[in-house]
Amino acid sequence: MKAAYLEKPRKIKIREIEKPTPKPEEILVRVKSVGICGSDVHYYETGRIGQFVVEKPLILGHECSGKVMEAGEEVSTFQVGDRVVLEPGIPCRKCSYCKQGRYNLCPEMSFMATPPVDGALVEYVVHPADFAFKIPEETSFDEATFFEPFAVGLYAVERANLKPGSKILILGAGPIGLATLLSALNTGQNDITMVDLYEFRLAKAKETGARKTVNPHKLDILTKFGPQFDVVFETAGSVITTQETVMLVRRGGKVILVGLPAQEEIELNTNLIISKELNLLGIFRYANIYPRIVKLAQDKKLDFKPLMTHKFSFEDTERGLKFVRDNKDSCVKAVIQIC
Amino acid sequence: MKAAYLEKPRKIKIREIEKPTPKPEEILVRVKSVGICGSDVHYYETGRIGQFVVEKPLILGHECSGKVMEAGEEVSTFQVGDRVVLEPGIPCRKCSYCKQGRYNLCPEMSFMATPPVDGALVEYVVHPADFAFKIPEETSFDEATFFEPFAVGLYAVERANLKPGSKILILGAGPIGLATLLSALNTGQNDITMVDLYEFRLAKAKETGARKTVNPHKLDILTKFGPQFDVVFETAGSVITTQETVMLVRRGGKVILVGLPAQEEIELNTNLIISKELNLLGIFRYANIYPRIVKLAQDKKLDFKPLMTHKFSFEDTERGLKFVRDNKDSCVKAVIQIC
Amino acid sequence: MKAAYLEKPRKIKIREIEKPTPKPEEILVRVKSVGICGSDVHYYETGRIGQFVVEKPLILGHECSGKVMEAGEEVSTFQVGDRVVLEPGIPCRKCSYCKQGRYNLCPEMSFMATPPVDGALVEYVVHPADFAFKIPEETSFDEATFFEPFAVGLYAVERANLKPGSKILILGAGPIGLATLLSALNTGQNDITMVDLYEFRLAKAKETGARKTVNPHKLDILTKFGPQFDVVFETAGSVITTQETVMLVRRGGKVILVGLPAQEEIELNTNLIISKELNLLGIFRYANIYPRIVKLAQDKKLDFKPLMTHKFSFEDTERGLKFVRDNKDSCVKAVIQIC
Amino acid sequence: MKAAYLEKPRKIKIREIEKPTPKPEEILVRVKSVGICGSDVHYYETGRIGQFVVEKPLILGHECSGKVMEAGEEVSTFQVGDRVVLEPGIPCRKCSYCKQGRYNLCPEMSFMATPPVDGALVEYVVHPADFAFKIPEETSFDEATFFEPFAVGLYAVERANLKPGSKILILGAGPIGLATLLSALNTGQNDITMVDLYEFRLAKAKETGARKTVNPHKLDILTKFGPQFDVVFETAGSVITTQETVMLVRRGGKVILVGLPAQEEIELNTNLIISKELNLLGIFRYANIYPRIVKLAQDKKLDFKPLMTHKFSFEDTERGLKFVRDNKDSCVKAVIQIC
Repeated sequence: MKAAYLEKPRKIKIREIEKPTPKPEEILVRVKSVGICGSDVHYYETGRIGQFVVEKPLILGHECSGKVMEAGEEVSTFQVGDRVVLEPGIPCRKCSYCKQGRYNLCPEMSFMATPPVDGALVEYVVHPADFAFKIPEETSFDEATFFEPFAVGLYAVERANLKPGSKILILGAGPIGLATLLSALNTGQNDITMVDLYEFRLAKAKETGARKTVNPHKLDILTKFGPQFDVVFETAGSVITTQETVMLVRRGGKVILVGLPAQEEIELNTNLIISKELNLLGIFRYANIYPRIVKLAQDKKLDFKPLMTHKFSFEDTERGLKFVRDNKDSCVKAVIQIC
Repeated sequence: MKAAYLEKPRKIKIREIEKPTPKPEEILVRVKSVGICGSDVHYYETGRIGQFVVEKPLILGHECSGKVMEAGEEVSTFQVGDRVVLEPGIPCRKCSYCKQGRYNLCPEMSFMATPPVDGALVEYVVHPADFAFKIPEETSFDEATFFEPFAVGLYAVERANLKPGSKILILGAGPIGLATLLSALNTGQNDITMVDLYEFRLAKAKETGARKTVNPHKLDILTKFGPQFDVVFETAGSVITTQETVMLVRRGGKVILVGLPAQEEIELNTNLIISKELNLLGIFRYANIYPRIVKLAQDKKLDFKPLMTHKFSFEDTERGLKFVRDNKDSCVKAVIQIC
Repeated sequence: MKAAYLEKPRKIKIREIEKPTPKPEEILVRVKSVGICGSDVHYYETGRIGQFVVEKPLILGHECSGKVMEAGEEVSTFQVGDRVVLEPGIPCRKCSYCKQGRYNLCPEMSFMATPPVDGALVEYVVHPADFAFKIPEETSFDEATFFEPFAVGLYAVERANLKPGSKILILGAGPIGLATLLSALNTGQNDITMVDLYEFRLAKAKETGARKTVNPHKLDILTKFGPQFDVVFETAGSVITTQETVMLVRRGGKVILVGLPAQEEIELNTNLIISKELNLLGIFRYANIYPRIVKLAQDKKLDFKPLMTHKFSFEDTERGLKFVRDNKDSCVKAVIQIC
Repeated sequence: MKAAYLEKPRKIKIREIEKPTPKPEEILVRVKSVGICGSDVHYYETGRIGQFVVEKPLILGHECSGKVMEAGEEVSTFQVGDRVVLEPGIPCRKCSYCKQGRYNLCPEMSFMATPPVDGALVEYVVHPADFAFKIPEETSFDEATFFEPFAVGLYAVERANLKPGSKILILGAGPIGLATLLSALNTGQNDITMVDLYEFRLAKAKETGARKTVNPHKLDILTKFGPQFDVVFETAGSVITTQETVMLVRRGGKVILVGLPAQEEIELNTNLIISKELNLLGIFRYANIYPRIVKLAQDKKLDFKPLMTHKFSFEDTERGLKFVRDNKDSCVKAVIQIC
C-alpha cells in the first residue's frame, strides 16, 4: 500500500509499504480523508515541535476517517463496510491518568503523527476498535476529519463549564477557534465575540454564528472591550493574545488557554490573576469527547461543510501542506482525499 | 389601591388598601401582569401548602411584571417608567446560606404569596431594587411573568450540569416541565423526551422543541425506554413518576427532583441509587438565575408566547384561579392582567 | 494448590486445583491474608446477593494481600518477593465508564468473589499488575486486607467533598462505618457522631476517634439531634437508618448512601429532599482509591490493628465465615491467614 | 477615644477622636488586639499598594479581636461582654458577586485599612454583627487576630480541593505560607514541603508540621524536586517562586497563586500550563471562611501560639510596624495589644 512519508523537513515522498494486519481488538481501516493540521505543516517545515523531533521518516496526518475493511476476532462493535472516524491518540489504559479518565495526560500516549508514531496519510491503518466511532450517513468522510479539531474546541468549552447566557470571547478564528465557536454555540451560547487578523476567517466566524467579530488591525480590543467577558478562550497561540486574556476577563472569570505559543515564556499579569481571582485552565488535546461529537452529528447539530475549504488528492499531499502553510487568509481546513 | 385577597379557601375579595411607599433601597412598581401558579391555586383551594398555612387574608401571586413608578433615594439602577420583572423572594442577606450564594435556602426568606407574606395581585408593590430586573422591549409584561417558572427550570438544568449531547427525560409537561425543556434547549441539548398524561401539553412540548413525547396512558415508559437516560428531571410531582426516575436513568446518571409530591413519603428503590451510583438532587426554587434569564431574553433566545395560553382581568382573578384549577388539559399558563 | 470453594450454601470445601500462570501483564501472587466481608458471609448463607447467584462452586474472598512469586514478561513494576495488596475488581478498560475514570461502573467488571468470578481464598492468584500495589514494611498482610473496606469508606468521603470543620453523622459502625470514620478523620474532620446498635462497635468507634457515639436502643436520635448535620453517611444498610438520613441532614446538606439495604424499596421523605435541596449520592464500591491508601499507609496515617479483631487459619475458613455471621457484637473484622 | 493614624508614609500619630455609635445591625467592639499585616507595613512605608493610595490620614490594622460593649437594637446574636473576632471586609450584599457567594470579589467591598476605609488600630470600632464571630474561651485575643491571615490560607486550601494523601509544595513560609500549611494539615494532609529563604521561618514550618523544609539558598529546588507535586501554593509573592510553580507541579496538577508580587507582569511558561493541562487559580482574600475557623478553634484544632512571636503596646504601634518591616528573620506575627 502507499504511504506519504516526511523524509526530512520540506520533503514528502510517497512510498510503497506493507499493509498492516489488525490484532484481535483492532480494526483495519481503508483511509478515506485526512485533514491537514497546523502541526502537520509545522513538522513538514521544521521537522519538530518542542521536544518532539522527527528523527526518522514519519507518516503525517491524524485527522482521519475511513471504512472498516476487517475486524479483529475480539471486535464485536464493527462490521466490514462501516464508515468510521478515528480518535488518533491511544493511551496506555493503566496509569493513574488513564484510570482517572484524563487519558489525554497519559505519559505513554501513542498519538498519530507525533514522532515516532506514524499517522494516517496512508492507504490503510489498524486501530483499536474502542477508539474508532461510526459516523452517520449524513456526515461525509471529508467532514468527519473535522471531528478531531472540533474535539479540541468541545473539550475546551466543557472545561469552561459555561453558564447559560455567558459573554464569551474567542481569540483566534483558525480551525481551533472556529471549533470552539461551534462548540459554544452547541451549548446554547450566543453572545460570542471573535478576534482574528484575517478578514476571511472573521467572515467564516460570522457565518458560523459569532455575534461580533473584531480585527485588531482595525480596532484596539482592550480599549473597545475592557474586562467584561465571563470566559476568554485563547486559540491563536500568539504572545499578545495570551497576554490580553487576563485583561479582558471579568473578576472571577475564566481564561482557557488552548493555543500553544511558539514562545515558551510569556509575560502575564499575575497581579490580575490574583486580584480578580481568575481561573486559568490549560487545555491539552481532549478526552472522552468523540462519543459526544458522534451524538451531535446524529442529532444534526454539526455542519462542518463551510469550514472544509480545500481538497487535495493523496498524490498532492505535499502541495496541500504547502498550500495550508501559505494561505491562512483564504483556507480554513484542507483535506487530503486518500481515495 | 386595589388588592385581591384570599379571604378564606375558595373566596377571593378585591379590597381597597393603602398604596405602599418605597424605602431608600426599594422601588415602587405598578403591577401589570401576574401569572397564576399551581401554588396560588392550591392556597385558593385548601388554604395551605405543607407547613405554610393561610391564617389571615393573603394576597396571592408571585409571578409578576410591572412599571417603575418611583425609586427610593439610594436606588441608582432604575428610572421611572422602566419595565421590570420582580424576583419574588427576598432573603435575609446575612445568614450562611445567603453569604454562600444559596439564598434560596435562607431560613428568613420572605417570598411573595407564601403566608404570611403578601403577593402581587395588587395594583402597586414595593420591592428591593436589586431583586428587580429590566426587561427588553420585545418582552411583553405577560411574557415576563413566565420568568419565574422559567427560573425554576433553568436552575434545575444548571444543577444538572449537562454535557453536550445528553439524553434527557423530563417527567411532566406542565409549566415547570416546559420551562425545564426550554432551559435544556437553551443549553444546546436537543435529545429530550417528555412524558405527560395530557395530549395538549405534549403537543406544546413538541412545538417547543421536545424530540419525543410519550403519554403513559398509551405506552409503558419503563418497558419502552429502560435505563437509558443521562439525566431525568421529575417535574410532575406524582408518586409514580418520582419512583420511575431511578429506573429510567443510566448507571452514574443524575435524577433531578423538582416537583413536590403531595404525599411526603415515597417508596424509592434505594438499591438502584447505590448500585448505579446515582446522584439525586433536590431543587428548591432558584438563586442567581434572573440576570441570566434577562440576558437570554436580550439575546432573543426565549419565546414564551406559545405558553401564555389564557388571560384574565384583575376583576376576574377568582375566575382565573378556578379556570387554571379545572383546565389542565387545555391551559399551560394563565395571566391576570392587573392594568 | 488448595482453594476454598463454596460448594453450595453453608458448605465450604477445600479442594486441590491447578496453580495459575500469569499472562504477560499479570503477576502471580502467593495469597497471605484474606479478610471476610459481609458479602462473603451472605453468599455462604444464601448463595446469592441480588441478581448475583452462585450457580457453580465459587471461591470466596476479595480483601486480600500476598507476596509476588512471578511477574509476567511485560511487568516492570514488581519484583519477586514484593509484598502487595490487590484491588479486586478488574474493569474492561474500554467502555465509556472506564475511559471517564468511573471504572467501578463498568458493565464488564470482573470482581473477585462475585459470581461467576472466583475470589482469593486460595493459595495463589494471578492479577493484572496495575491493580496490585506494594505495601509499606510497617503494614502487615493482615492489616493490608483492610485496604478494601477502607477503600469504600475513603471513596464515600471523597464523594462527599467535605469542607473543614463539618458536622458529620455516620449511621452504622461496622467495618464500612469504621472505614468511613477513619477516612473522615484522615481528611481532618473531627466532629463525627456515630450510631450503632452494638456497644462493642461504638467502643471501637470511640477508640478510633469518633467524638460522640449513640446507641438508638437508648436514645432517639431524631429527637436528640434534629436536622443539624452537614453530611450524613448511611453505612448500616437498614431501612430505618436510610429513612433517617434526610431528616438528620441540614438544608443544603448531603446524604451519602453506602450500605445496601436487603429491602429494595424504602419509603423516603422526598419532600425533604426537595424543600431542603439535598444532594443524595449513591456509592458503589470505589475507583482510583488504592494508590491514595498506599500513600496514607506510607505516611503512617492508618492504623487498622484495632479493627482486626479475629484470625482464622485457611483450614478453618468455614468456621471463620460462621463466626463473623454470629458475632456482630464482638467482631469487627476477621482474617483468614492462608499461610 | 484614641486612634493610631498613618499621617503620611513613615509617620504614625495617635489622635483623640469621637467614639462611634452602632447602627441597629451593628455592634460596638472594644478592640483588644490587632495583628500587623505585611500590607500595614507596606502602607506605612510607601503610602500605597497598587491602585490603593493613602490620600488622607488612615487608621491601619485589619486583623483584630475585641469585646462587645454594645449591640444595635436589631442584633440578637451577641451580648455585652462577648469575646469576638471581626471579619474585616464588608461587601455590598447586593451585587452579583455577593449574591453568588463570592463576596470577596464585590466591587463595593469596604475593607478595613484599605484606603479610604479606616482600620482597627483604635480603641473602639462598630461592625455589622453578621461579620463578627464569637471566639472560644481557649482562644486568646492575641491568637484570634491570626484568624484573618489563617482565613487566606484556609480559603486557598479549599479552592485547591485536595484529595487525601496529596504531595503539596508551599513556596514561602511567612504568615500566609504558615497559615496555608496549618490549613492543609487541618484537611488531613501531611506530605507538605515548604520553601523559604529564612531558616527561622523554616524552623517554624517544621515545628508546625511540615514534613520537609528547603532553603533555596542551599539547594536548587527545581533540580531537587522536578515536577512531582499535586498542588503548588505560591505565598511568597516573589517573581522567581511564581515562575517555578508551573515547573514543580505534575501534569494535571494545580497551582494556587496567593502572594501578590510587587512586579505586575511575570514571565510564565504558558507552554507548561497547556501541555501539562494545569489549573492556575488566583486567590483574593476569602469568603465564607470565618465560621469554619471558629468551628476548628472550638474543636481545638488550631494552635496559633507558636506563630504569635512579638507583642507591642498601642503606644508602640509605630515601633511595631518598623520591627515587622526589619525582622523577617525572627518575626512571624506581631500583635498590637490595644488594651
